[in-house]
Amino acid sequence: MNELTIDAPAGVPQITMRREVHAPRELVFRAFTEPDLLKQWLGPRRLTMEIDRFEARDGGRWRYLHRDEDGTEYGFHGVFHGDPTPDQMVQTFEFEGAPGHVSLDTARLEERDGRTIIHMNSVFQSVEARDAMVASGMADGVREGFEQLDELLGRLATVG
Amino acid sequence: MNELTIDAPAGVPQITMRREVHAPRELVFRAFTEPDLLKQWLGPRRLTMEIDRFEARDGGRWRYLHRDEDGTEYGFHGVFHGDPTPDQMVQTFEFEGAPGHVSLDTARLEERDGRTIIHMNSVFQSVEARDAMVASGMADGVREGFEQLDELLGRLATVG
Repeated sequence: MNELTIDAPAGVPQITMRREVHAPRELVFRAFTEPDLLKQWLGPRRLTMEIDRFEARDGGRWRYLHRDEDGTEYGFHGVFHGDPTPDQMVQTFEFEGAPGHVSLDTARLEERDGRTIIHMNSVFQSVEARDAMVASGMADGVREGFEQLDELLGRLATVG
Repeated sequence: MNELTIDAPAGVPQITMRREVHAPRELVFRAFTEPDLLKQWLGPRRLTMEIDRFEARDGGRWRYLHRDEDGTEYGFHGVFHGDPTPDQMVQTFEFEGAPGHVSLDTARLEERDGRTIIHMNSVFQSVEARDAMVASGMADGVREGFEQLDELLGRLATVG
């Protein structure tokens, strides 16, 4: 099942997501933590991604820009809590278009028969901030991002 | 009103707290961000505090130990998201006795007639983790910590 499951219960400042990919988790982990791979899949298809900084270690900072056809930029940044591992990647997340609103994102990679189930958990400072994220159309961007991840993992598997 | 207000609604992975202190917010901000001051007030009275690291800046890491009369140590660590300001101090928080469970803490200092209202907001990765924090007796520790903060702010006001 490649279907993306998104759970965002009313009145709770949280979003959980689940998506299976057909690749071993070490490869998926690389796609999450190596900037040259990350920029090939994260976000909606219509946006290109430029990584300004990506320090995948405890206290490391990350920042990237999504850019649309008109050159409009959407900036995001955060920090890593702990050194990321396939069992837990924890980072803060702030959209620079809504400064001051920060969420805590946790990703966990579960291996199952050579495939990987990606579990993602985001908690927000308020239900309002969570609702704004849902209303922004993030689901479509996440869905397209995972489709691009499928494609990337396919290319990586072919290469070796 | 020096009373501590704690709100932890059922089924929501969040704790919000509010406490007024009789000091200007710049002084309260110093008590939150200068390790030599922080160690004089944070946590329960029966525990002493040792600060291992405290880098109050974007991506900065912090770690401290609370130690009881028997020498038993309780370690905590996290990272700062953004440079802390009186309007917003955002940091991650992990109790080393429950590794892997991370919360996102936001503190905001509101000045009102020379006094300061401290607003604190913690969001957890799950309701279970939030409930475990509440069950740990954190409310007593927070209450005593704020009493020690009152005392510290009194001493600082006298000195300077």
